[in-house]
Amino acid sequence: MKHSPFVLLIAILCCVESVLAQKKVDPEQQMIRSIYDETLTQGEAYENLRYLCKNIGGRVAGSPQNAAAVEWARQLMESYGFDKVFLQEVMVPHWVRGQKEIARVVNSKKLGTQELNITALGNAVGTGPEGVLAEVVEVQNFEQLAELGREQLEGKIVFYNRPMDQTQIQTGTAYGMAGNQRRSGPSEAAKYGAVGAIVRSLSTDFDDYPHTGSTVYTFNLPKIPAVAISTNDADLLSHLLKDDTELKLYFETHCQILDDVMSYNVVGEITGSEYPEEYIVVGGHLDSWDLAEGAHDDGAGVVHSIEVLRTLQAIGYQPKRSVRAVLFANEENGLAGGKKYAELAEENKEKHYAAIESDAGGFTPRGFSMDVSDEAYERIQSWKPLLMPYDLHKFDKGGSGADISALKPQGVELIGLRPDSQRYFDMHHSAQDVFEIVDRRELLLGAAAMSSLVYLIDSQGLYPKQRGK
Amino acid sequence: MKHSPFVLLIAILCCVESVLAQKKVDPEQQMIRSIYDETLTQGEAYENLRYLCKNIGGRVAGSPQNAAAVEWARQLMESYGFDKVFLQEVMVPHWVRGQKEIARVVNSKKLGTQELNITALGNAVGTGPEGVLAEVVEVQNFEQLAELGREQLEGKIVFYNRPMDQTQIQTGTAYGMAGNQRRSGPSEAAKYGAVGAIVRSLSTDFDDYPHTGSTVYTFNLPKIPAVAISTNDADLLSHLLKDDTELKLYFETHCQILDDVMSYNVVGEITGSEYPEEYIVVGGHLDSWDLAEGAHDDGAGVVHSIEVLRTLQAIGYQPKRSVRAVLFANEENGLAGGKKYAELAEENKEKHYAAIESDAGGFTPRGFSMDVSDEAYERIQSWKPLLMPYDLHKFDKGGSGADISALKPQGVELIGLRPDSQRYFDMHHSAQDVFEIVDRRELLLGAAAMSSLVYLIDSQGLYPKQRGK
Repeated sequence: MKHSPFVLLIAILCCVESVLAQKKVDPEQQMIRSIYDETLTQGEAYENLRYLCKNIGGRVAGSPQNAAAVEWARQLMESYGFDKVFLQEVMVPHWVRGQKEIARVVNSKKLGTQELNITALGNAVGTGPEGVLAEVVEVQNFEQLAELGREQLEGKIVFYNRPMDQTQIQTGTAYGMAGNQRRSGPSEAAKYGAVGAIVRSLSTDFDDYPHTGSTVYTFNLPKIPAVAISTNDADLLSHLLKDDTELKLYFETHCQILDDVMSYNVVGEITGSEYPEEYIVVGGHLDSWDLAEGAHDDGAGVVHSIEVLRTLQAIGYQPKRSVRAVLFANEENGLAGGKKYAELAEENKEKHYAAIESDAGGFTPRGFSMDVSDEAYERIQSWKPLLMPYDLHKFDKGGSGADISALKPQGVELIGLRPDSQRYFDMHHSAQDVFEIVDRRELLLGAAAMSSLVYLIDSQGLYPKQRGK
Repeated sequence: MKHSPFVLLIAILCCVESVLAQKKVDPEQQMIRSIYDETLTQGEAYENLRYLCKNIGGRVAGSPQNAAAVEWARQLMESYGFDKVFLQEVMVPHWVRGQKEIARVVNSKKLGTQELNITALGNAVGTGPEGVLAEVVEVQNFEQLAELGREQLEGKIVFYNRPMDQTQIQTGTAYGMAGNQRRSGPSEAAKYGAVGAIVRSLSTDFDDYPHTGSTVYTFNLPKIPAVAISTNDADLLSHLLKDDTELKLYFETHCQILDDVMSYNVVGEITGSEYPEEYIVVGGHLDSWDLAEGAHDDGAGVVHSIEVLRTLQAIGYQPKRSVRAVLFANEENGLAGGKKYAELAEENKEKHYAAIESDAGGFTPRGFSMDVSDEAYERIQSWKPLLMPYDLHKFDKGGSGADISALKPQGVELIGLRPDSQRYFDMHHSAQDVFEIVDRRELLLGAAAMSSLVYLIDSQGLYPKQRGK
């Protein structure tokens, strides 16, 4: 085919015009659009989550499933051809639930014997086959406990029944407000000679699912068996206790704390082109509770983090700094992975520029919570016009994530992805946290939000007067 | 009991201090907090929705279930003791699905015979027991159709297969972009002599559920049978068509358009104390498709609207203007209820001040979309600081709701609740729109957002210089 000079001239003019037209589009705007397009049409986070949930499932630290998750994540990141994929050895606690728990009200005037839905708290000791049988004392908080004192608590089961505050708009706030019952409640009760603790599930829902989660025994106090009870059964038990002084409760748990086990943080990296020794981390935790599949907590964070690297690579963005996806070991009952990562970063003199954690579920992202310097805060605020078209509107100072928090003393800027919080504590730590309740688009949007922030941090820098643009 | 003068003085001082302290809190802020507290702890929208979905279910205009829904809504609003509860007569179309649809690929080189998941489009004519058997021509849009022309389309089944655009952040935008295939596709195909139309389900998901929805036949064209096919089967069919020129498709639908039926808009009212002749409407539509329970579409809008009145009443707010919950008839396949409401408003010289519709699901509300005057827009913008603490951040100009749109010519300020849109079109108009997929807190937050806006519109007025504060 032969072109006339006139046709060629037209072609050249068109080219010039097209170049000029492109100039009008802000390159940052264009890059973020590319990130979203790639993730929303080619994103693999949802299918990766399906594999993790359905073919591996729950993966408590130290469990065989946790080992499977480590190997799966390593192979997956290798398959993406990231520049580096490696494991960091971490010794983790090894708590096992053992056979299913039993709980029943006995001696109730109204109901006689009545089974209750409970689950052992993570890290708790078990009752063994003999179980615990005792009267129940209901309290709302530690102040009431102190008022009752040893006289009224010795030999009893303490029942913590302070609900999550439904009027909080951010459910995470309500979780924080109710959390000490589970975390410290068993040991607080042990102070006064209680023989067991039952904690109302930290849930925003009213149903029959008990929600586990770790308890932390105080060093020098007796370790008493501790369980969570479903919100419905907590209400039932509370109701029965109102006029049933003879009521006793029996429960049986078979959990045990075994010897620590070697596990791993799994790290994938795209090495930076200009500052390879500076790191931006995106992370989530690979362990989960055993009652379900750890889909939102924190399968979402795991596949989000991997998707960030996959997306940046797929759109051909070569970061200046090294970007790492870090899948932390043992967030749920020890934080050993996060601590080890920070320890190694210090030991190896790795300069961590920023770390972003996704550990609040795979829901529609609404923005970020930032534990950052004022300079970085200002900088991130200036990116709002780039991110708000993607329905990201929260850019507040606040917490970040448990795993990355150990990096704080090294002066790392810490950021947490903030998805919509309304559904999270309905299923968090319960048998309901399965793949089916994760929405594909919501999950992918979380990954795209993180990728966009990583891109901006890397390309623009967090400190206006510093190197970079 | 006798008090010393000193104790009385202290008591009086405390009282004064408390009054002063209360003055510091903005009364609007306080009222919105009360609305949220009431709705989140005492809200009945979720249990009301359970009844509507589980005891009545799908409720197509003209169906017995639709009549049940009318009576349920009337009784429910009566039970709340609203000042007025009444029905407005509306003649509605009566489309019935008849026995379950059948569709199969026949003569496929690869698969031989293969069943496909389809559902008749609302308002479509049926094939009857003889079905339609024809070759299939796949197109993406009406332009392609025109290019193919009568020569290649006569006697064929036209298969519209343009997917919803996954890169749109607001799924409603993608729905709008794909919508003409379903709405006008069958008649467009009939122009060229096609004997049937199959439309890719308007869904953001990839699954086996076909999504119905109404089609609109052009007056002077033959009415051809029309169905939606699940996204998975649309992909399969498209794949087969690539190299299978002999392939034919058979489908059978038994839907019919019967005579119009009397139905009703259901209206509940709290009568205004100062301007009883001015109305603020909150509304949703009472009809739904028949494939599921119309939980998000639009059971949510129905229970939202009722909850607004219940909440305002429960917190003791006496509106200046009359606030009406209007549950419109026949949104899905005719809009007869919305049109009738506007007609009666005009006839009765009711001054409608504002109307807010909830017809985008019971998901976490993100704000409002407003089809309002510039004055009202400015006014609503000024309320952002009051509403943003409740995670409402969208206050954009745009559409409102189908049912209230007929009020536009009367100069009514129209507003649509905008919940998070990510999950809506996964289940919209399909068998998946059931009670179980609605989250209690998300639903209640939608009602609280609407109540807060109604309160602000009523107490502050929409026009700064007008009466009121």
